[in-house]
Amino acid sequence: MTMRRKKISVIGAGFTGATTAFLLGQKELGDVVLVDIPNAEGPTKGKALDMLEASPIEGFDSNIVGTSNYEDTANSDVVIITAGIARKPGMSRDDLVTTNQKVMKSVTQEIVKYSPDCHIIVLTNPVDAMTYTVYKESGFPKNRVIGQSGVLDTGRFRTFVAQELNVSVKDVTGFVLGGHGDDMVPLVRYSYAGGIPLETLIPKERLDAIVERTRKGGGEIVGLLGNGSAYYAPAASLVEMTEAIVKDQRRILPSIAYLEGEYGYQGIYLGVPTVLGGNGIEQVIELELTDPERAQLDQSAESVKKVMSVLV
Amino acid sequence: MTMRRKKISVIGAGFTGATTAFLLGQKELGDVVLVDIPNAEGPTKGKALDMLEASPIEGFDSNIVGTSNYEDTANSDVVIITAGIARKPGMSRDDLVTTNQKVMKSVTQEIVKYSPDCHIIVLTNPVDAMTYTVYKESGFPKNRVIGQSGVLDTGRFRTFVAQELNVSVKDVTGFVLGGHGDDMVPLVRYSYAGGIPLETLIPKERLDAIVERTRKGGGEIVGLLGNGSAYYAPAASLVEMTEAIVKDQRRILPSIAYLEGEYGYQGIYLGVPTVLGGNGIEQVIELELTDPERAQLDQSAESVKKVMSVLV
Amino acid sequence: MTMRRKKISVIGAGFTGATTAFLLGQKELGDVVLVDIPNAEGPTKGKALDMLEASPIEGFDSNIVGTSNYEDTANSDVVIITAGIARKPGMSRDDLVTTNQKVMKSVTQEIVKYSPDCHIIVLTNPVDAMTYTVYKESGFPKNRVIGQSGVLDTGRFRTFVAQELNVSVKDVTGFVLGGHGDDMVPLVRYSYAGGIPLETLIPKERLDAIVERTRKGGGEIVGLLGNGSAYYAPAASLVEMTEAIVKDQRRILPSIAYLEGEYGYQGIYLGVPTVLGGNGIEQVIELELTDPERAQLDQSAESVKKVMSVLV
Amino acid sequence: MTMRRKKISVIGAGFTGATTAFLLGQKELGDVVLVDIPNAEGPTKGKALDMLEASPIEGFDSNIVGTSNYEDTANSDVVIITAGIARKPGMSRDDLVTTNQKVMKSVTQEIVKYSPDCHIIVLTNPVDAMTYTVYKESGFPKNRVIGQSGVLDTGRFRTFVAQELNVSVKDVTGFVLGGHGDDMVPLVRYSYAGGIPLETLIPKERLDAIVERTRKGGGEIVGLLGNGSAYYAPAASLVEMTEAIVKDQRRILPSIAYLEGEYGYQGIYLGVPTVLGGNGIEQVIELELTDPERAQLDQSAESVKKVMSVLV
Repeated sequence: MTMRRKKISVIGAGFTGATTAFLLGQKELGDVVLVDIPNAEGPTKGKALDMLEASPIEGFDSNIVGTSNYEDTANSDVVIITAGIARKPGMSRDDLVTTNQKVMKSVTQEIVKYSPDCHIIVLTNPVDAMTYTVYKESGFPKNRVIGQSGVLDTGRFRTFVAQELNVSVKDVTGFVLGGHGDDMVPLVRYSYAGGIPLETLIPKERLDAIVERTRKGGGEIVGLLGNGSAYYAPAASLVEMTEAIVKDQRRILPSIAYLEGEYGYQGIYLGVPTVLGGNGIEQVIELELTDPERAQLDQSAESVKKVMSVLV
Repeated sequence: MTMRRKKISVIGAGFTGATTAFLLGQKELGDVVLVDIPNAEGPTKGKALDMLEASPIEGFDSNIVGTSNYEDTANSDVVIITAGIARKPGMSRDDLVTTNQKVMKSVTQEIVKYSPDCHIIVLTNPVDAMTYTVYKESGFPKNRVIGQSGVLDTGRFRTFVAQELNVSVKDVTGFVLGGHGDDMVPLVRYSYAGGIPLETLIPKERLDAIVERTRKGGGEIVGLLGNGSAYYAPAASLVEMTEAIVKDQRRILPSIAYLEGEYGYQGIYLGVPTVLGGNGIEQVIELELTDPERAQLDQSAESVKKVMSVLV
Repeated sequence: MTMRRKKISVIGAGFTGATTAFLLGQKELGDVVLVDIPNAEGPTKGKALDMLEASPIEGFDSNIVGTSNYEDTANSDVVIITAGIARKPGMSRDDLVTTNQKVMKSVTQEIVKYSPDCHIIVLTNPVDAMTYTVYKESGFPKNRVIGQSGVLDTGRFRTFVAQELNVSVKDVTGFVLGGHGDDMVPLVRYSYAGGIPLETLIPKERLDAIVERTRKGGGEIVGLLGNGSAYYAPAASLVEMTEAIVKDQRRILPSIAYLEGEYGYQGIYLGVPTVLGGNGIEQVIELELTDPERAQLDQSAESVKKVMSVLV
Repeated sequence: MTMRRKKISVIGAGFTGATTAFLLGQKELGDVVLVDIPNAEGPTKGKALDMLEASPIEGFDSNIVGTSNYEDTANSDVVIITAGIARKPGMSRDDLVTTNQKVMKSVTQEIVKYSPDCHIIVLTNPVDAMTYTVYKESGFPKNRVIGQSGVLDTGRFRTFVAQELNVSVKDVTGFVLGGHGDDMVPLVRYSYAGGIPLETLIPKERLDAIVERTRKGGGEIVGLLGNGSAYYAPAASLVEMTEAIVKDQRRILPSIAYLEGEYGYQGIYLGVPTVLGGNGIEQVIELELTDPERAQLDQSAESVKKVMSVLV
């Protein structure tokens, strides 16, 4: 039989999309198609070509192309959506939602048209509502439409903990539920260094500060950059989720998943622990929550519903 | 004895500098310090933090910090210079040279002050003259001041050849001498696919077109991006050279090296095949050239001297 | 769509087979089935379990199982044959051929029964004749039955050259045609360090000695080990060829390929440069040979035919 | 300054020593010297050469040499001891101890003579007492003499849990204290899948069976192999510990460490969680234990003392 390389398309060729494309190629997860609007076709092609020219030096065999034509994404195995606008000064949150909803709808129509069997991973904010939009618009089964937030949030949390303890990031784990950023529900009791609960290693007030810093982690980068937002860690997060799917690894990773009764919620996308493998979200893992955790998660779910209510 | 991680500083936190810093960290070649001017300190810190937050997700143990304070670069093993301006519309080539020369001088003084034993790799254009400037200003022995151009040029050449033949980039090699870009002297007879001379695999006119495209490779990306220049492949090139040094690999790579009689030139920096290892440029490899190759190389050397004559 | 991991079976759980299985798993090229005869089922299972227990430490997600039941190999993408006996003292060369031919036939029947669409890579000696046997017995198209010898031979050659020049193995290439070992036809003029022809870098008598050492490379290891033969470099060779196929890399690698007119030979398996990709041997690359090279290759082909004449 | 490659010596060229040497080279952690007794010099050289011949194929730059001369180990950064005999049928446990103690003493003298500043990692069984022997004989500070058992034991535990839950090994962690094998004290409450305590994911009786299988993990492999013991997972364990040291990663890994009051023990080597970095064991992490855990650990310490009492 013929071995076909996997094909992965990345919609949106901004910093996050481009960095994602590069990492996908570098890890030889498949051939990569980087897509942006016709107006940005030059830069999109330029970035893709620059990446490709790095391939002999880095030593990877992945084709990387830039395009504004969705035909080039045909038969993708995974499509990653990073397109959309960021909230600008003076823009209401609702305006952001409706604008990005429109982007999601049009992008999804194109994706579905050319890759009816693909998995879709969504990064665009507000990510819970945008993943829901893509789910509805695509008509795909829920296991194939997935949102990213928890891998990034725990990545930040793990970085701060590793710094606090001066140990390897490889040995620190974190755990979050719920929405992204402010609505994040950190489960510190499920977070460890070398398997040892962080609560026994870090004083409570330091740990609280780390949790708070994680919640505001996106804002911290925005504040430092002055003009723009984080893209290295978000790209790494998208790539880890994609790898879990294309290599059928059955990783236990936090995903934004469509809930139909899990955790008591119905018909919303929310951040929960999942098993990610060759079928996308193969399982939602349910945990018993303490009362305060439950209260926080309810609040997070309420936030998501509030945003969803703006969807048209 | 205590094992100390290598330390690598990258001067200039633009796209190339930042991408270089990320790849260095990702490959665990050492801890990374990303440096830019005080005015850009926020973005520099922001990019470094964003990269660091990718480290638990990508699974690498390298500290990455952003700073505008050269004290933070103290005791670097390797320092990479990407700082400087790009030529702007209306700017004369001489103005570019004198402006970047000033940048090189002040950057080099800071590097030497804090890391008197380091190796320096220069990317800033015009790279031959800028490497010469850094060499003179640093007072370092010639083996520890190295310019980059050939790894990138051959990277592009290999990409185009691999596309032409539809084979893996891993099996295509290229060979250039002389200056960067237009002044590049491609030695096609030393370029192969699977060890087979390209001249026997690709019709001459196609091969000529590939050489020409390689010469203009930087411009092709600039033209596509519209605003900015290549950074993925340049960063990968800097990282490969750095790896050869910090891992003492004795790679045979093209470098911009200070010549004292080799190839008949005296007192200039020019692109030649070198052995790169734990002592930086450990050897310049001399080749017999055909008359046309010799003529091209002379012309390339003349170009370098012309630029050097502008140096103040 | 569901992403299925690739599946690779390795027939023969001796040192080479086991090392191959481990490297395949470690590189996450697919799930691995290690097969040996029922008498060796315990050790086969033991080795596979030991490898699997290394997976969390090494950080790879590949299942590795040991078995004596070919049912477990069902639907393999690639099957690697390392089974067979080594020539023992007092055993005639013809006895070796007929014994291993029997092994090849029975192994091939099982492979074909359970994985009718797989690619087969053969290592068993005498490898040209054994690959031919597998080809005939399988009824597979020629592109899906491939023998290994040149990757190993050039690997040894490159090692010796890198030592001679004290440079990185990454920058040395080698080139061989024809049979394995004594019948190897080295094409030194297509062998380089950093793209520079070895003939200009190494004195002729040293280069001749390296060629001779390469020819006897298997015997050198046998002589040192005292009891047994090489397995690390042979395993690495099998894995590189497998990776080229499962990742559809279109690598230019020397393979033992079935010739139907190429190089003037008909109906024999012989070592030639090939393009290895998702369809197995996608192309045989033909080179013009000098008269002495042609003479050597003819002699190598004669040797292969002589062995083939023993086949029953 | 000159960059020197790290140097790592492996004492004992049996299956574990050889596999360790190969993995060290493959990961470019340093140049490798594989050492065995003069009687085994041929095979030792043969294995090392075979590994080296895999280096151009695998693409790594590490020298690997075999020797019976300790002079060749001079100035090693890390020395790994795998030498010694395995317990044979009819051999008393005490005989094993005294025989291997003699081996440790003579090996240590040679190591210290040529690499007075190195770190030593011990694998030889009974590992607690043998590490103690090396510590005493070397006169090294305790941070530079380290025993391996917990990385292997948790590696096996993680494998079995990943199989039970059908999830990635990357997301399963384990935790053990105390001696190796039967004396292992598993801390299941510190063991997780995706951060979720295993006790909530796996029924108690299944979890107990997994713990029991882990305890007997070495024996399971011995039983299957029939003749010999595990080497892939032990080698991977040694390599992970070595990497933590030579890359100064400050990994949190279980080590056999010399205790001076920690956990209430004095003057014995015992398995505990440690921070492994550029100074070897940089920290012993102390945990509060439940009464049953404490009782088990006391029993494990008693076993170690019993073996130590046999030391002469």
